[in-house]
Amino acid sequence: MQPVLIDGIWRQARSAGTFQAVDPSTGSPLPGLFPISSFEDVEAALAAGRRACQGLIQASPDDIAAFLERLADSILGRANELIETAHRETALPKAPRLGTTELPRTIDQLRQAAKASRDRSWRRATIDTKTNIRSIHAPLGGPIVIFGPNNFPFAFNSAAGGDMAAAIAAGNPVLAKSHPFHPGTTKLFAEIALSCLEGLRLPRATLQMIYHLRPEDGLRLVAHPLTGATAFTGSRSSGMRLKEAADRAGKPISLEMSSVNPVFILPGALRERGEAIAAELSASCSLGAGQFCTKPGLVVVLDSEEGRAFLAASKKNFKVPSSGFLLGRSVLESLQASVSEMLRASAEVLAGGKPVSGPGFQFENTLLKISGKAFLDHPGSFQREAFGTASLVVLAETEEEMLRVAEALEGNLSACIYSDKDGTDNSLYSRLEPILRTKAGRLLNDKMPTGLAVVPSMVHGGPFPATGHPGFTSVGFPTSMLRFTALHCYDNIQQDRLPPELRDENPTGKMWRLIDGEWTQK
Amino acid sequence: MQPVLIDGIWRQARSAGTFQAVDPSTGSPLPGLFPISSFEDVEAALAAGRRACQGLIQASPDDIAAFLERLADSILGRANELIETAHRETALPKAPRLGTTELPRTIDQLRQAAKASRDRSWRRATIDTKTNIRSIHAPLGGPIVIFGPNNFPFAFNSAAGGDMAAAIAAGNPVLAKSHPFHPGTTKLFAEIALSCLEGLRLPRATLQMIYHLRPEDGLRLVAHPLTGATAFTGSRSSGMRLKEAADRAGKPISLEMSSVNPVFILPGALRERGEAIAAELSASCSLGAGQFCTKPGLVVVLDSEEGRAFLAASKKNFKVPSSGFLLGRSVLESLQASVSEMLRASAEVLAGGKPVSGPGFQFENTLLKISGKAFLDHPGSFQREAFGTASLVVLAETEEEMLRVAEALEGNLSACIYSDKDGTDNSLYSRLEPILRTKAGRLLNDKMPTGLAVVPSMVHGGPFPATGHPGFTSVGFPTSMLRFTALHCYDNIQQDRLPPELRDENPTGKMWRLIDGEWTQK
Repeated sequence: MQPVLIDGIWRQARSAGTFQAVDPSTGSPLPGLFPISSFEDVEAALAAGRRACQGLIQASPDDIAAFLERLADSILGRANELIETAHRETALPKAPRLGTTELPRTIDQLRQAAKASRDRSWRRATIDTKTNIRSIHAPLGGPIVIFGPNNFPFAFNSAAGGDMAAAIAAGNPVLAKSHPFHPGTTKLFAEIALSCLEGLRLPRATLQMIYHLRPEDGLRLVAHPLTGATAFTGSRSSGMRLKEAADRAGKPISLEMSSVNPVFILPGALRERGEAIAAELSASCSLGAGQFCTKPGLVVVLDSEEGRAFLAASKKNFKVPSSGFLLGRSVLESLQASVSEMLRASAEVLAGGKPVSGPGFQFENTLLKISGKAFLDHPGSFQREAFGTASLVVLAETEEEMLRVAEALEGNLSACIYSDKDGTDNSLYSRLEPILRTKAGRLLNDKMPTGLAVVPSMVHGGPFPATGHPGFTSVGFPTSMLRFTALHCYDNIQQDRLPPELRDENPTGKMWRLIDGEWTQK
Repeated sequence: MQPVLIDGIWRQARSAGTFQAVDPSTGSPLPGLFPISSFEDVEAALAAGRRACQGLIQASPDDIAAFLERLADSILGRANELIETAHRETALPKAPRLGTTELPRTIDQLRQAAKASRDRSWRRATIDTKTNIRSIHAPLGGPIVIFGPNNFPFAFNSAAGGDMAAAIAAGNPVLAKSHPFHPGTTKLFAEIALSCLEGLRLPRATLQMIYHLRPEDGLRLVAHPLTGATAFTGSRSSGMRLKEAADRAGKPISLEMSSVNPVFILPGALRERGEAIAAELSASCSLGAGQFCTKPGLVVVLDSEEGRAFLAASKKNFKVPSSGFLLGRSVLESLQASVSEMLRASAEVLAGGKPVSGPGFQFENTLLKISGKAFLDHPGSFQREAFGTASLVVLAETEEEMLRVAEALEGNLSACIYSDKDGTDNSLYSRLEPILRTKAGRLLNDKMPTGLAVVPSMVHGGPFPATGHPGFTSVGFPTSMLRFTALHCYDNIQQDRLPPELRDENPTGKMWRLIDGEWTQK
């Protein structure tokens, strides 16, 4: 049985069961037996994580940065092994995906996090010289528990992805729980991370890793007194259960739960380039077999001649054999359940709608349609995320109905408007935009929502139930780091007792600080 | 019956009952009958508030600033009336309190909020020029519900205090719920606010006000789909109920619930100036009859000769007639219950411990003591807030026990360490500080925690259960405004569709923005 990583040591789990990863292309279990940890493992890891907090708080940001940079380099050095393992466990293509975009992105994220750690500006040091009151963002004082999602074995991996990089760059130790679909990949990352800690003055529990937990132990974990905070990316049902447990205990939890990512295509845009937009839609929708949190799952057009032409073009695009596998049996079942619910609520199938028979996990590319009126009768049923290559087109009878559909939307990660270049859509845009703006963290124009640039201004967040709080982002440095921080004020504290970032002298000579209302590097 | 303010109109409440304010110095009801609003009032106010959101989003920040500045000026113009009313309803002294410090602070807060609105730097506009991705903090899109506390009729008043100023400066309409101890004061503020809206291009529902709610309606209000977010300052029991309701609905809630504000006095400091510190303690503890959320309610010293001398001096200071009244009968009862629980858990009374008989609400200045060992046996019982002039001194047998007491603390708003000037306390300080630092939002040295400077670096916040999230502050501009914002990203949006703060040209010529990693006013 594979060992877990607790307090810097690979050891046998106190296991509460075992599991195996499954090859999604065959449906067969892969070699390698992994433990489902008991709560004893969790408690050992939390205790070690809590002890590691102080070491990280006292560590130099340069050491933290060095660790993250080594990790980036070492991952690059073991790229082939990682790509092979992740490919086996997820059936995601090596190219153009795992090796060509996701691994480079993961490495880039780690380097950005390292840069943020070195730079220190993320701490938003604020100094009022007259009163000698100073404040700064600081680590939370407890380990950050990361539940990685199924769909990004690298970029959101709990042991090497964006959350892990953000939590550690902000000075917190991490307790990673692998996703049970890719435990082998996660174990590789944890091995690499442990080797990168060698020789640095960082606690050995800076990164710990377990593979799996019983659901009830997950709830206890996020609410545990030693836990600093949790980051979860996954389904709404699991996310809501974890949220309730964490909320009740007053523990911060960063959630990314589900999103249908509505795309509104205005009449002028349809006239101008409907067929091109239909091609963009199917390409975006089928990326990664539709298993992206920003997949466009809901499209709204007017029920006009152009709207129906768009529908016909989309139908043709979706009526091709599905490419790629779903990540697991549960994904297939959940997709089937979402499609069934929409059909029960009177959606009509234009393409697909059924699993592809075979040993692997596949589902036909699925395009559904519904009238605006029917959507408004059951808005909840039509906003259930259908994780996979599936999208629902809403045909609104009038512009007013289109606006009402927008009003009926829940919180989303993204919302998008396509409009024409001549400006005939401007008037409708200006009525639609204020409604959509409060429904999503990221608003796009003329661009499908899949594909996230990891830049400081990115927001991968949004109103509930897409996430748990609309003021945060889980992608983009340094902003994503703030999820794992507390705001600390120092009132009347003498210089040598302040953290270096709050002393009169700028610790790097370049760190941005807000002194008496002015941002300065002095 | 007094009218409520809904959608710019003073109208009779759909009432579910009535109440009167009470004069705390006599225990007798004051003239004036106020309605307990039914949920019909709430729904009308929420609907109007939601409509007002768009108007405020489109309003000029200069108009919002003008409103807040007018409000500051008008409050100053009607200072006498406000002071008389608040004095009647709270029995807080006109001087040195209501007129001399709290009203000036309230006015200053409104002016700081206005300045922040005009300045716009609070929005943390972030631009990545290469990808044309831009982000900004933005209003939430629903009204902010403010539950004002009992103890600050001006500075934290739901219709004119810090939360209201922060919410409106961030572009959100406010639905104020007065505290039932001072409805007349709150009504005056709402009247002034309404008159200040005249002639400005702002929605008339920018500020709405109701007096009171049935508890179950409060829970429905914070969870209502139209609600943007809630700010609550008050007791832990009420706060926890509201938190649960808001959390379940995924609605942001800013909570300030309770704090004992531990003060650790190290041996050297006691030797050097024990008597002076004892005087500081009793002065801080009795300020406002002990009804401050930052009142030092827990003091930790070593059980040494100096520790016992400090105790004796403190006992003498507390054994004077209590000055000032408690704000209501429920405060008296709650204080009595907290003292009783500590006595049951074996605390010893050094001074006070009982209500003062009489028609008004008074309690003796109360000083209790307990051994470190007994504290550690029942840490929960000794950390129940005793709102009033009451403090508990913990006598720790050893430095190690002192550290264990620190370890056993819950989250607090503040924590304080007194140490000597010669440096003999430095070693103990360096062991104690890391423990205390993660337990409180604000760490002080050699200074009692009451008295909050309203400066950008202030943190009035802290870990649960002092608040609901350790990353925010409810005092200090512009940081406190971020509680009432969402993070909005604009991806590939053309210039004229962006908010002015995100266009290439700086809208004020002075606003601070983070462009390609550099803070700049360009």
